[in-house]
Amino acid sequence: MTNFTYFNPVKVVFGKGMIAELKGLIPADVKVMLTYGGGSIKKNGVYDQVRAALAGRALTEFGGIEPNPRYETCMSAAAQARAEGAGFLLAVGGGSVLDATKFIAVASVYAAGDPWGIMEGRQPVTAALPLGSVLTLPATGSEMNTFAVISRASTGEKLAFASPLVYPKFSILDPETTFSLPARQVENGIVDTFVHVMEQYMCAIGSAPLTERQAEAVLLTLIEEAPKVKLHPDDYDVRANLMWCATTGLNGSLGCGVAAQDWATHMIGHELTALYGIDHARTLAVIMPAVHRHEIRRKQARLAQCAGRVWGITQGDAAARAAQGVDKMEAFFRSVGVPTRLSEYKVDAAEAGRQVAARLAKRGVKIGEYGDLGGQEVQEIVLLAK
Amino acid sequence: MTNFTYFNPVKVVFGKGMIAELKGLIPADVKVMLTYGGGSIKKNGVYDQVRAALAGRALTEFGGIEPNPRYETCMSAAAQARAEGAGFLLAVGGGSVLDATKFIAVASVYAAGDPWGIMEGRQPVTAALPLGSVLTLPATGSEMNTFAVISRASTGEKLAFASPLVYPKFSILDPETTFSLPARQVENGIVDTFVHVMEQYMCAIGSAPLTERQAEAVLLTLIEEAPKVKLHPDDYDVRANLMWCATTGLNGSLGCGVAAQDWATHMIGHELTALYGIDHARTLAVIMPAVHRHEIRRKQARLAQCAGRVWGITQGDAAARAAQGVDKMEAFFRSVGVPTRLSEYKVDAAEAGRQVAARLAKRGVKIGEYGDLGGQEVQEIVLLAK
Repeated sequence: MTNFTYFNPVKVVFGKGMIAELKGLIPADVKVMLTYGGGSIKKNGVYDQVRAALAGRALTEFGGIEPNPRYETCMSAAAQARAEGAGFLLAVGGGSVLDATKFIAVASVYAAGDPWGIMEGRQPVTAALPLGSVLTLPATGSEMNTFAVISRASTGEKLAFASPLVYPKFSILDPETTFSLPARQVENGIVDTFVHVMEQYMCAIGSAPLTERQAEAVLLTLIEEAPKVKLHPDDYDVRANLMWCATTGLNGSLGCGVAAQDWATHMIGHELTALYGIDHARTLAVIMPAVHRHEIRRKQARLAQCAGRVWGITQGDAAARAAQGVDKMEAFFRSVGVPTRLSEYKVDAAEAGRQVAARLAKRGVKIGEYGDLGGQEVQEIVLLAK
Repeated sequence: MTNFTYFNPVKVVFGKGMIAELKGLIPADVKVMLTYGGGSIKKNGVYDQVRAALAGRALTEFGGIEPNPRYETCMSAAAQARAEGAGFLLAVGGGSVLDATKFIAVASVYAAGDPWGIMEGRQPVTAALPLGSVLTLPATGSEMNTFAVISRASTGEKLAFASPLVYPKFSILDPETTFSLPARQVENGIVDTFVHVMEQYMCAIGSAPLTERQAEAVLLTLIEEAPKVKLHPDDYDVRANLMWCATTGLNGSLGCGVAAQDWATHMIGHELTALYGIDHARTLAVIMPAVHRHEIRRKQARLAQCAGRVWGITQGDAAARAAQGVDKMEAFFRSVGVPTRLSEYKVDAAEAGRQVAARLAKRGVKIGEYGDLGGQEVQEIVLLAK
């Protein structure tokens, strides 16, 4: 097991009716800025619940945060937070609203020039407004981690930053808020969660037996619950299980003692979203099977372990089991309702591969668990997803 | 899934050489009081590592904390902490030192009379000195939770308290510190961890699929690693895996969404330790199989699930699988080297049952996941462990 530090001070407040707890979770003497997206929270009653819980409090609002939230939008929100004297940000929404709010928290108190330098890794995060969240879309895990991904319209970039200063002070997870989600977002959330877990788990370097089993626990639960949510979309327990899987999948616990992680799928996926506008999770479903097939020899032992413990594959040698496990994963994504091939999006894989490789090369990025996948390999991977 | 709040701000610093990180983890301007036990840390080099990491810092020390730490000892330590002006407590040891240090942290700033009232649940915890730990014995999980169990020599009581104010600010877990542990303490630690997990998992009420699988992940890892530590006591990875299992086993994560827990084994076990001086973990190995056999009908579904997923039992009906699973658990404890019957300690089970029942009745305590096991049932359980 590799040395590690684990620290996650987010208070998770989970369950039906828990939005009412908001009042006691935010300091009484600060002005709160609500941040949210396209307005679905006004249709499904979440906005009203939040307003009711904060009745009598000094409030301001910033709505209209888009999926793949933009730097430009965040900068407007940060200006509003400063102008209004907001002392606490409350994100109400899914991962995009959460991620945007983390960047707003930093940008609104940033004094060292353009905060985009943080996204480019040139400048550190040294301060942030405190923030909390009411999660309405289980997927990204942003509600219990330090990460945020922000896109910049003017350059077509999509970059990530992380800082313990943007841990939410609390996240309220009420599964009932997810009943009204469009099927597409539920499907995307399941795939996003699955891929997050895999990217921490599916490496050949080192071993961390307990953490690996905890990763498998999330995968098995997703596989069990995914078909149920299609058949019984109003089943509270199914929604609750999916929500807790998504949070657990990327709260740092699955990285404990793990020697290497492999975020190649996310790295390539971000570029495909930036280039073609494909939903984030849908790029992952396309790329992860291709990454595993490309790396099948180097990842064989762990892929075979996964095949046995997660997919129940016990026949054949390790190579055969590894390959069958990848096939099973791709079939699972399709069963969830998510395509797994670029051709299904009318995207030419060869051309996409060249473009993604060029964009990563421009930033000097090599990817994969060994950090050795460069332009040639990226093109091979994208072509495997044709 | 049941509503829950999860909050655990302990920073875990895990791995070889990590004691050197101490310096950066404790505020520079406070006097530190080291607390420790019988002096094993002076033999195995841990004391020297801690002193080296804190070179130049204002320090005081309180050694001699005993297993099943005593109120009387803690009160002396609290008086010393006050007299010396300690601003931070650093526990260096196992669960007993940790638990004692939590009580010292409260008692040393306690202004409302005798702090034993906290143990009796009559008085709340309102303040505590900050504390951290260097763990040397994986077992109790105290390094990452809010619990402490303290015994009072004058009354023969052994009671628990919990408060978020006694969460360690950090816990350093270096598996190398466990190489020098006596075999008996390693065995006890494995059983203690196993039982902690079971007490959160082995209930019939409700279901929390992800949390249940995470509990099974710990159990499976313990079962895998336990034989290795006997064969290869110097294997770092085995020690690391056992250490991380112990911490994960009782850090609150395995309670997320769980509708009921069943701490009957600990409740009865504490009384057996108080009455007969049997090691804490060894009382658990005796009592847990008896609790499960007594409750086998009510716990049947979960016991059968455990039999299948943890013990690999797939033959027979649910009742048969449940019973076989309990047999397997008892055999596992014995394989670790821990007896599972009161007769092996020359204790008369009928008499022990009467005494335990009387002591619990005196405090008005009913136990079990339904809170309905009273004197009669407690006697039946203890008799099953004869």
